[in-house]
Amino acid sequence: MKGAIIAIGDELCIGDVVNSNAAYLARKCTEIGIPVDRHVTVGDNLEHIVAELQRLAIEHDLILTTGGLGPTHDDRTKEAIAQFFGVPLQHSEQAEQWIRQYLTLQQREYTERQATQSTVPACCKPLYNAYGTAPGLWCEKSGFPTVIALPGVPAEMRFIVANSVLPELQQRVRNQPRILLRTYGIIGIPEAELFEQLSEDVRRWENEGITVAFLPSAKLVRLRFRWTAPPSVSAEERIADIESVLRQRFGRRVISYDAPLEATIGTLLAERGETLAVAESCTGGYLGKRITDIPGSSRYFLGGIIVYSNEAKKRFLDVPQEILDTVGAVSREVAELLAANVRTAFSSTYGIGITGIAGPGGGTPQKPVGTVWIGIATPSAVTPHLFHFKGDRETIRRAATTHALLLLLEQLTATTPAT
Amino acid sequence: MKGAIIAIGDELCIGDVVNSNAAYLARKCTEIGIPVDRHVTVGDNLEHIVAELQRLAIEHDLILTTGGLGPTHDDRTKEAIAQFFGVPLQHSEQAEQWIRQYLTLQQREYTERQATQSTVPACCKPLYNAYGTAPGLWCEKSGFPTVIALPGVPAEMRFIVANSVLPELQQRVRNQPRILLRTYGIIGIPEAELFEQLSEDVRRWENEGITVAFLPSAKLVRLRFRWTAPPSVSAEERIADIESVLRQRFGRRVISYDAPLEATIGTLLAERGETLAVAESCTGGYLGKRITDIPGSSRYFLGGIIVYSNEAKKRFLDVPQEILDTVGAVSREVAELLAANVRTAFSSTYGIGITGIAGPGGGTPQKPVGTVWIGIATPSAVTPHLFHFKGDRETIRRAATTHALLLLLEQLTATTPAT
Repeated sequence: MKGAIIAIGDELCIGDVVNSNAAYLARKCTEIGIPVDRHVTVGDNLEHIVAELQRLAIEHDLILTTGGLGPTHDDRTKEAIAQFFGVPLQHSEQAEQWIRQYLTLQQREYTERQATQSTVPACCKPLYNAYGTAPGLWCEKSGFPTVIALPGVPAEMRFIVANSVLPELQQRVRNQPRILLRTYGIIGIPEAELFEQLSEDVRRWENEGITVAFLPSAKLVRLRFRWTAPPSVSAEERIADIESVLRQRFGRRVISYDAPLEATIGTLLAERGETLAVAESCTGGYLGKRITDIPGSSRYFLGGIIVYSNEAKKRFLDVPQEILDTVGAVSREVAELLAANVRTAFSSTYGIGITGIAGPGGGTPQKPVGTVWIGIATPSAVTPHLFHFKGDRETIRRAATTHALLLLLEQLTATTPAT
Repeated sequence: MKGAIIAIGDELCIGDVVNSNAAYLARKCTEIGIPVDRHVTVGDNLEHIVAELQRLAIEHDLILTTGGLGPTHDDRTKEAIAQFFGVPLQHSEQAEQWIRQYLTLQQREYTERQATQSTVPACCKPLYNAYGTAPGLWCEKSGFPTVIALPGVPAEMRFIVANSVLPELQQRVRNQPRILLRTYGIIGIPEAELFEQLSEDVRRWENEGITVAFLPSAKLVRLRFRWTAPPSVSAEERIADIESVLRQRFGRRVISYDAPLEATIGTLLAERGETLAVAESCTGGYLGKRITDIPGSSRYFLGGIIVYSNEAKKRFLDVPQEILDTVGAVSREVAELLAANVRTAFSSTYGIGITGIAGPGGGTPQKPVGTVWIGIATPSAVTPHLFHFKGDRETIRRAATTHALLLLLEQLTATTPAT
């Protein structure tokens, strides 16, 4: 079974909205063993949607669509699917019942407009949507690929996928070979050099059917290993080989990267029974946001202070006015004070302090945009680190938080717990 | 001129990375008047890349690609472009010089591996990349569309687009009609009802060549108006008509939405000479992050406290233990205290307090996952607001920050400055 994804919506086509749905669907398909080799984005244009369905149908057994199921005139997906299958739209009792139920909960009326949402192409069955009025659609007709249409609102799409789509797809592919993925991060070695050092191993792995992708990001390169295995075979043996080669060559620089960095750090902190607090100036809460993206982060994350103004740096974390007057807010001294004093203020094991110039304004010849100081406070020391990030505001702020997490990770992998 | 985008990379295809580059490129093209009607994502697969180039070439004058220009064996974009145009790869003196320059700055060697990055398809000229070793490519050959190849690393891609691609494209389309876009947000009216109320206006606008898209998100529906105008015609007249219709029907519920909510609020706060501080529990810094996404936010954003633990709520914002013991951390009382006390602590005009259950764990029958209290403190009052958001952790946390911003916006549009 081979899959493709069509994301539908003018707002996607013109770049008003980033297409995160396609990534979500592709990941879910990949995880259960359905390879996805095409994503397409088209506008709310009947002809274009039908053309893409027809084109992808030639080589794909499964087509997932998102978007264009709303109640307004610019939503054309159902029409396009009906045309593709050559079937009429018809009323669905089940869909109407779900929509009425949903509207009642919202204390809203079932109007003519919503009635259009209870029609489905004749070869499709509606899929329950707990978060909105647009049901998903599961469409099958002999000689055609399976088409699954989902709403564009991410929470609605994800609900229907988890509730109705994945369980059924998993059943269908349970005897198929699975695609296995494992990712490692190598800290502090440039992509080209890494490739040099691993070129023979990569050749060997590829001969064994394992493809290796090099994914550089900030000062970390991720290596993604991908191979196909029968449903009965465990992934463990091959992983052991891969991991031992990497550890042998790069030692402590190797981290498992199947989970995001935030989650890896969270697991380590929780295992060690340690805690963290952060003081953020130029990142303004971004680091705290990333740490708390992880469910259960309250086990180790106590909180933080967003010291976006100099006044806040003085008032909450005792940065002396004199320091601000002499070396300035973006300095080794302030990064150290933020890290050490937020650690004390929260009584946490670790403290992180970030101060820098995210741009686009505010740079000087001495401290250009991208200058960021990060302080890491541990029970025994406070260490300052200077970075010069390149790129726009989002890139610099994200890089600052990523490097703060990497510095903490280094700390956590290099030491045993203090207690 | 009509454009299409091809994003290249296995990591995109399997959903490991969200394709934000395509949205960026589509937005930039749309802004200068080049409509984009297709985005395609393919893996690092020579045959697939060539097939998509050939297919899109039939109906498009401009194809932008991102990704697959790196130095490793899985980067196939240059090969694919050479094959598409039917030209060989050849060494570029200019590319080599830029790569050597970049490596010298990084104190790295120019190796055989990097040498592969200085070859380009014969009909392409390299484009300067200040942030990495992969130059962009501008490829032209009679009878073919223009193909512009960009690296996949977002900061590198954006640099090359701003520095080399947009200035040249803008020149080429300067006498073409432009696409004009204006967006309004309507607060608190469901999409279907809005469509009912506006259906006659929408028909009239569409007859005048203005397409209207309804984009629902949280409790706000965005209306995006899009039309084409000759380069000489100002957009103002048509906008005045649209805006007066919307204001007449929906009054204060209408906001201009051409900038993100964070920027709209920032402009209002700066104009009013007012300031803001935030206290975040379940959002963990997400609100501060969004506010500080906006350059220049230090004019009105003083900072915040991330009170992720109960201890932090007590220590930094004087939430009494008794309140936590009786009504709990997720309560009207705590939201009010967070908002009022963070406002006092930072001496700001406004204070926002957020406390809730982001899930997936931590819900109870009385306070299910998605329960969020938001407090808004102004110079004259503290108002609590209860929400029950649906969806996963990211959806709930994002919705909480969006509604906090919307509540503040309501405050800012409903009142004149206190001073």
